Amino acid sequence: MGGTDQARCTRRSPAATNVGNSKENNGGVTRNLPVDAVINLDHGDPTMYESYWRTLGDDECTFVIKGYESLSYFSNPKNPCWFLEPKLEESIKSLHGAVGNAATDGYSIVVGTGSSQLLQAVLYAVTSHDQPNQINVVSAAPYYSSYPEITDLVRSGLYKWAGDAHQFDKNEPYVEFVTSPNNPSGVIRGPVVNGGGGILVHDLAYYWPQYTPITSSLEFDIMLFTASKCTGHAGSRIGWALVKDKEVAKKMTKFMEVITIGVSKESQLRVAKILQVIVDRCKCFGSPEGHNFFEFGKNLLTKRWEILRETVKQNKMFILPKYPLQHCNYTGDVTQAHPAFAWIKCKDGTDCEKLFRNHNILTRGGRKFGSDPGFVRVSMLGREEEFNLFIDRLSMIQIFNKGDGHENENLD
Amino acid sequence: MGGTDQARCTRRSPAATNVGNSKENNGGVTRNLPVDAVINLDHGDPTMYESYWRTLGDDECTFVIKGYESLSYFSNPKNPCWFLEPKLEESIKSLHGAVGNAATDGYSIVVGTGSSQLLQAVLYAVTSHDQPNQINVVSAAPYYSSYPEITDLVRSGLYKWAGDAHQFDKNEPYVEFVTSPNNPSGVIRGPVVNGGGGILVHDLAYYWPQYTPITSSLEFDIMLFTASKCTGHAGSRIGWALVKDKEVAKKMTKFMEVITIGVSKESQLRVAKILQVIVDRCKCFGSPEGHNFFEFGKNLLTKRWEILRETVKQNKMFILPKYPLQHCNYTGDVTQAHPAFAWIKCKDGTDCEKLFRNHNILTRGGRKFGSDPGFVRVSMLGREEEFNLFIDRLSMIQIFNKGDGHENENLD
Repeated sequence: MGGTDQARCTRRSPAATNVGNSKENNGGVTRNLPVDAVINLDHGDPTMYESYWRTLGDDECTFVIKGYESLSYFSNPKNPCWFLEPKLEESIKSLHGAVGNAATDGYSIVVGTGSSQLLQAVLYAVTSHDQPNQINVVSAAPYYSSYPEITDLVRSGLYKWAGDAHQFDKNEPYVEFVTSPNNPSGVIRGPVVNGGGGILVHDLAYYWPQYTPITSSLEFDIMLFTASKCTGHAGSRIGWALVKDKEVAKKMTKFMEVITIGVSKESQLRVAKILQVIVDRCKCFGSPEGHNFFEFGKNLLTKRWEILRETVKQNKMFILPKYPLQHCNYTGDVTQAHPAFAWIKCKDGTDCEKLFRNHNILTRGGRKFGSDPGFVRVSMLGREEEFNLFIDRLSMIQIFNKGDGHENENLD
Repeated sequence: MGGTDQARCTRRSPAATNVGNSKENNGGVTRNLPVDAVINLDHGDPTMYESYWRTLGDDECTFVIKGYESLSYFSNPKNPCWFLEPKLEESIKSLHGAVGNAATDGYSIVVGTGSSQLLQAVLYAVTSHDQPNQINVVSAAPYYSSYPEITDLVRSGLYKWAGDAHQFDKNEPYVEFVTSPNNPSGVIRGPVVNGGGGILVHDLAYYWPQYTPITSSLEFDIMLFTASKCTGHAGSRIGWALVKDKEVAKKMTKFMEVITIGVSKESQLRVAKILQVIVDRCKCFGSPEGHNFFEFGKNLLTKRWEILRETVKQNKMFILPKYPLQHCNYTGDVTQAHPAFAWIKCKDGTDCEKLFRNHNILTRGGRKFGSDPGFVRVSMLGREEEFNLFIDRLSMIQIFNKGDGHENENLD
């Protein structure tokens, strides 16, 4: 893998110096965290996008719904996915068209309460109550840590988690989750099960221009996306699936009908509006900062990755993945990936999650991803101040680790 | 069971005469349905409440959210149910306090994507991955038709549907869903399994003053409610559970965390506002129509039930349940129930769902509720025009049934 490792900018925002104060401003950019605050970078909570949405005018992005609107369960009784808001369907198609990351012609769209619910809907849709054994569900390690838990939560008789796709060699039916770019490692991936022939589910939550070069418009059978990682609106819990086979889409809809009788109308309508705002500005590059959403996201993540790489280079304790330079069809630039997560390895094999926790940084350890505890996944999507505190602490780990590394073991 | 059967008012709104026009006004009161329109009274789609919410001023009920608000997954990291919006928690407590239908002191509140998701969360929370056999899930017939489907959808190894609670006589652990007032029959119920000792889940979706007299403030271990049937905002998909045991509440939260990573923030915040509007007006009785939400709902349902009972009395083909007169602690009146569904029986044992379908009225047949096909469940919560068309057709069934009853059999 190629890519540059030089930091062009290590200046951080003045917010990092406003410490010693516990004022919080939910939804705001500055929260004035105390200097010893625990920073939670375990989840990929995409609060870094708040500052973009704050720069846009209220008229454009504010969602308004009257007391008597959207009372009904139904959004569009003529659509097989009867709870999908037509405006959301339209915005999703416009956005994929404008970005060029996925085909929508000939696809059914199924909306879900986040893409987690859609994963379960897919497992339900591709299995049968008549089958004698559970279908195997696999994904190549390091895989998204929630896959095993989602699959096995209620011990379904239809499907079961069967681990690392690299190790799967049974002559049995299987579903392979292909996460690309991968969570946690950020790399572009394809299916890996030897021989193939399984059902492929492409989890494309991070296939957006702020994270990775868009190299083609994908046309897989089942493709999953989520507003959480596309626009930053994680609290809305809106995911969508592009599904080639109409019968699969119908069964997924049936799943959502039974499990939650559809998906929040307010969230669907708000996300429809937010996606449309992105579409309306997304062919305009190089405009004042914040104008093009993907440009904003890419610039900020590029800066953060440069700072992170520079810090890691200085303290010599960690290894970061490198990503190849590729042509992005959306921006027209040759660029590398700047993933939503840093997949960090301790050079000496130390339990990296524990090490970070001793420095009040919460991350997710490698074991949860089917990998080893030398790795951690760190969210790069937090607020500016959290990121800056993380970098401050990361740069001090080398100096103080031997001295204070065991002081906080009661946190384990 | 007592109760009166006399109709005091059979006048219907002028909307019923505006037929022969297919204009629709989603969210509006008048839709001008064609005279032969299929009326869908299968679901309990609570669109009758649109006209109430329309009468209130926009300032009071309109929900507004800015583009940068509620991006985070988290609502309140200090609450074990970390995705519950504090404003919703507060409104739920205020509403139960004002209505006096359920205690909230000492209870944990868990929010869900509708109460369907909470049912599943309860089943997950009260079972264990270590248990050798699935726990039995029962409910007294006629039971809510979705219970069997929700319970068995993914063939869980933790729980299984075991049918009518009246018939359950195994010496095994069980969960009993106690629906009160009952869906479909509207009657107040308690647990029925002989010997008892099971886990009781009280589904109280309809325990609100518009449907039934509020006779006491309930204090069961697990109580489920939903905005859909309380305020009419079914599209928001907001349910809540009042849970006595903190560990059960924690496990339910865990379920929601894995399955959908929480619940839509927009829906929670909007429903919080709507509940507060109800609370602010709910101690004011006898004010102009529409002022007190429960009074509006009760008046409209009373009128509809009177019309329905009068129609049934005229054509002599059907039987309706009667409900006892009881003192309602909320209104201070002695009143009978006016349920959200009419549980109608054909006197001669005809397949009632089929009969109604032949008259372009979609209902849900008795078999789905563990009962016999002589029964149907008919939603009383539709828009005025739908209800009026239903009554028109119901009144004509007796006259024309022998002549045209078999013409539309291809609809089966």
